Amino acid sequence: MADSLHRQALRIFKAALKAADPVQAVLNHVRREKEILIAGDRRYNLKSFRNIYVIGAGKASARMALAIEQLLGQRITGGLVNVPNAVKLRRVEINECGHPIPDRRGVAGARRIAKIASEAGPDDLIVCLISGGASALLPLPPPPITLAEKQAVTRLLLHCGATIHEINCVRKHLSLIKGGQLARLAYPATLLTLILSDVIGDDLDVIGSGPTTPDPSTFADARAILEKYRIWSKLPRSVRQIVSSEIAETPKPGDKIFHKTQNVIVGSNALAVDAAAREARRLGFHTLVLSTFLEGEAREVARVHASITKEIRASGRPVKPPACVITGGETTVTVRGQGQGGRNQEFALAAALAIAGLRDTVILSGGTDGSDGPTVAAGAIADGTTVTRAETLGHNAAAFLANNDSYSFFDALGDLVKTGPTGTNVADIQLILVPS
Amino acid sequence: MADSLHRQALRIFKAALKAADPVQAVLNHVRREKEILIAGDRRYNLKSFRNIYVIGAGKASARMALAIEQLLGQRITGGLVNVPNAVKLRRVEINECGHPIPDRRGVAGARRIAKIASEAGPDDLIVCLISGGASALLPLPPPPITLAEKQAVTRLLLHCGATIHEINCVRKHLSLIKGGQLARLAYPATLLTLILSDVIGDDLDVIGSGPTTPDPSTFADARAILEKYRIWSKLPRSVRQIVSSEIAETPKPGDKIFHKTQNVIVGSNALAVDAAAREARRLGFHTLVLSTFLEGEAREVARVHASITKEIRASGRPVKPPACVITGGETTVTVRGQGQGGRNQEFALAAALAIAGLRDTVILSGGTDGSDGPTVAAGAIADGTTVTRAETLGHNAAAFLANNDSYSFFDALGDLVKTGPTGTNVADIQLILVPS
Repeated sequence: MADSLHRQALRIFKAALKAADPVQAVLNHVRREKEILIAGDRRYNLKSFRNIYVIGAGKASARMALAIEQLLGQRITGGLVNVPNAVKLRRVEINECGHPIPDRRGVAGARRIAKIASEAGPDDLIVCLISGGASALLPLPPPPITLAEKQAVTRLLLHCGATIHEINCVRKHLSLIKGGQLARLAYPATLLTLILSDVIGDDLDVIGSGPTTPDPSTFADARAILEKYRIWSKLPRSVRQIVSSEIAETPKPGDKIFHKTQNVIVGSNALAVDAAAREARRLGFHTLVLSTFLEGEAREVARVHASITKEIRASGRPVKPPACVITGGETTVTVRGQGQGGRNQEFALAAALAIAGLRDTVILSGGTDGSDGPTVAAGAIADGTTVTRAETLGHNAAAFLANNDSYSFFDALGDLVKTGPTGTNVADIQLILVPS
Repeated sequence: MADSLHRQALRIFKAALKAADPVQAVLNHVRREKEILIAGDRRYNLKSFRNIYVIGAGKASARMALAIEQLLGQRITGGLVNVPNAVKLRRVEINECGHPIPDRRGVAGARRIAKIASEAGPDDLIVCLISGGASALLPLPPPPITLAEKQAVTRLLLHCGATIHEINCVRKHLSLIKGGQLARLAYPATLLTLILSDVIGDDLDVIGSGPTTPDPSTFADARAILEKYRIWSKLPRSVRQIVSSEIAETPKPGDKIFHKTQNVIVGSNALAVDAAAREARRLGFHTLVLSTFLEGEAREVARVHASITKEIRASGRPVKPPACVITGGETTVTVRGQGQGGRNQEFALAAALAIAGLRDTVILSGGTDGSDGPTVAAGAIADGTTVTRAETLGHNAAAFLANNDSYSFFDALGDLVKTGPTGTNVADIQLILVPS
């Protein structure tokens, strides 16, 4: 029983991975019917376009381009994507650049991407492919700000306590491409942006700092943030000059350029969770999605999952067995020990302790990128026998958890989830299975 | 809107408190129709009993006895309950004794309770009232173990790392009353035990160490536990003597004495959560109970609740607005700061940070005993404006949380939940409300 439950949990998890695969994600949301390309709520008549360019940046964007080449083939005029790892493409050029610290290759590529966008005409279509890491992979500081100065500002921002929204507000105002400016460059060409989101909540203006999304924030906001965190006076002169000048403001919501722009999320944690839920229902589980915004200390979040598992067993709430409860998001681990592991394996280990002895239940936690922390596993599976099975090996689950040694723990039991690198990242998925 | 949401959350919480009130809890589960007393799945014909005795122990047991006096009045022959605080009763004697450390008054009362039970005959009915604290309030060590020696063992057990089930296994074998032995004393009288459970999961043999419940554990198990945690050699000689003798084993499941025994849970976290859910539905909320087994570090568990709140707003999952999600259980707080607060107020403060800016939602966390930690509040209510309202007072929510100062934080905002001491304890209740 436990074995078949493990297998079912893996199948559901793999359905999530499939939906997050960059090629699959694009093909799930963009289809071609003869000369019509259908994406989101719009139809693009390919015959009406003179040129089709493919641009973009991000860790998964090369494989997204592969899918677009499958769809559009010879219709693609050309293009360029800034990515950290090469993939073989036919029509779209690959520019390998530094990540997560932006480098000169990144700047050179961003400049060429901006040029492609600005030279495109009203009869051209630009397909823009954005995925995780796009912020660092699309560096284009306005002169006189140098790359080194921009890097220095980024470091100051990351350590001052500002929120991701505040950091992005500043970033957008120290760039010629972010905060909707790529859409302005592309106008009056038609712009279709496909997004594989690694951001919880899928906030369009957060993913890659929203190069093709309206930016409600202003230079004044950026300055207020820099002053609030007391880093204004530490900034390079060029940066203060740009922020103070308040010229070339980012395009705002309602700007006419966005009438020719469509942003479509093709992959995200929510879409992966949806795919997992469909697979769970197909396997006969009553399925409940609790959240795709999950956050918190992994071991504590796991205890909440265990408490829900116990309730399902005790009362059939919140969902009757055969039950599947799914969550998505990204937990954190406060490392105190010396062991090997990652947030998903630590989640599974804490869950194992909390459901020890509970018959016929499994809890799986896995990262969609396939490598949880610095390990070769994506995550692990816990069940009611995990703790006692470990005891027979002489392993104390609580001691392994205290040492953050979840990888060694599950490796010994053979209960790691191993997928290999998936080439995508839409955060993590957690599953609870309780058969009837 | 926020105000009316706060009021609705309070109404739902108060419905839970009402169901947990000791008098109300008994009256909800025991009723009298002329000469028939109906409790659980049994009917007791009062005319068939010569005497009716009321015995018991626990923090809420005096008020439970009050309810029994309302139902049975003059039919009560007499009886005695061991409690920490007196209540005025007519027929049942109150014995105030020490808690949580058992004292001589407790032993004297336990001895009299055992005598009442053992002297009752086949035509007598014993109503036994058990509530939180009953373990400490019913101390009756077998000779030659002295009270002081039993206290010493309890201290060793509490600090050795044993689980509550392991501690109870030992306790039951160092008592003449626990682990079903009170039921054996009462046999062949008819025994009706009413239980107000403060134990998550309502394990009958854990609540008050199960004085009227079969005990599957043995002296050999008790010895194995004492050896496992390496305290066997530190024990008083009398204790080792009793455990080694293996005489007077506790009554086991299937023992005939339990045919005349019924245990009825009249109050519990699960029953309080049910009452809250009924009230939420009455107010028009789509209502989902997630768990009555909630545990974990309060601030992290709160973040999970916030992540569910965000999902309800974003997608109407796991339940469509107007939505109410209810959990019950008992979180913990790792104190690092100097402030004032309790686990429920800390939960609300962490929730406030995680839902900051989210419109029209509230999260309430409250303890059913009415005093959260060492404060005069039962808990607090958080909403999407909590953090900004605090800022206008110059209060930084994150700083108050870091200092475990949730009481001061919510006191200043007027968002404490104050009920006064409720005289009951069925752990905590958490509510999420998201109107449509």
